[in-house]
Amino acid sequence: MMKLYYAPGTCALASHIALEEAGAEYATVRVNFAVSEQRSPEYLAINPKGRVPALITDRGILTETPAMLAFIAQSFPKARLAPLDDPFRFAELQAFNSYLCATVHVAHAHRMRGARWADDPVAIEAMKRKVPESVSACFELIEQKMLQRPWVMGESYTICDPYLFTLAQWMEGDSVDPARFPKVKAHRDRMSERAAVRKVVAEEKA
Amino acid sequence: MMKLYYAPGTCALASHIALEEAGAEYATVRVNFAVSEQRSPEYLAINPKGRVPALITDRGILTETPAMLAFIAQSFPKARLAPLDDPFRFAELQAFNSYLCATVHVAHAHRMRGARWADDPVAIEAMKRKVPESVSACFELIEQKMLQRPWVMGESYTICDPYLFTLAQWMEGDSVDPARFPKVKAHRDRMSERAAVRKVVAEEKA
Repeated sequence: MMKLYYAPGTCALASHIALEEAGAEYATVRVNFAVSEQRSPEYLAINPKGRVPALITDRGILTETPAMLAFIAQSFPKARLAPLDDPFRFAELQAFNSYLCATVHVAHAHRMRGARWADDPVAIEAMKRKVPESVSACFELIEQKMLQRPWVMGESYTICDPYLFTLAQWMEGDSVDPARFPKVKAHRDRMSERAAVRKVVAEEKA
Repeated sequence: MMKLYYAPGTCALASHIALEEAGAEYATVRVNFAVSEQRSPEYLAINPKGRVPALITDRGILTETPAMLAFIAQSFPKARLAPLDDPFRFAELQAFNSYLCATVHVAHAHRMRGARWADDPVAIEAMKRKVPESVSACFELIEQKMLQRPWVMGESYTICDPYLFTLAQWMEGDSVDPARFPKVKAHRDRMSERAAVRKVVAEEKA
């Protein structure tokens, strides 16, 4: 049985939802960021990056959300969470998830994790100030150029959807007004109604 | 025939090498960063993110290096550039590439592209100062925990190898001493001897 290490409010939510949507048997372990458990020797033995998510499988440990999401889709093909028989469509899906991971999540991270990229407190404050603008620019591109309907990839629900939903949770905290991005907001609302999403969100909030 | 938009010195090198290793028929188009051609209306019509690489295929346009690399591996299975029949090994490969994309490349980008994340010139200078430390920390993790031999994934040469090679080109520019990372340096040297790499590097330098 797979085991997902997660913390509430993090990008681990995407893999958590995907496992649920896939019908996987899995357990979850909550990592307590309030006491920096992600930097404990025990957790660093699981993920030396000191971050969540991490997925324990019977073959070994996986990290990095885009890789984990594709793994979940490939491991549960009957759930049809990715266009597995079409390399071009699969690449489009992966390009979307890569953008979320390397651009959107990174823009957001400058609000709380600026110390990764500068030591000067003045610089860290300057990074925080730009987050509403840089994150908005990301959602503008998603809104205008990337997001289809009703799901990210169009008619088919895929592993892009829980990932976008996860990062869209952070808009208000980043002082980004969801009303500026009606397609993204409608997607978030649509996601919130899914049984798997309700179950996982309730568990993470408990 | 596929067409790769690239600029010298960028992460597009990874896809360029992968196309060559795959035995693909492809053309290349150089985007002139010196005159900000990546922000021209013509190029933004190809890639609205205003970045390289972009890969024109007969099905449409792809961006994002991890997605393009997996697409190249899947499109040319005989080249055996990824463990396509093993979702777990494929996920390990993708996790490596995701780390390069979202953590290593991002750490590096704070040297030249700090304006993405702050407006204050003092902050941008502070970001530059931390790059040697933050990029070194990435290569330390790669050296100690991630890199196998002779190739990233072990015995098999994969799409991880040109991607690591590409980012390892930037070490000296980021004031990171390659001598501190003997496995990474040996990998870079090993890559430099491959016919495909020599050909592509020569073309990008021409």
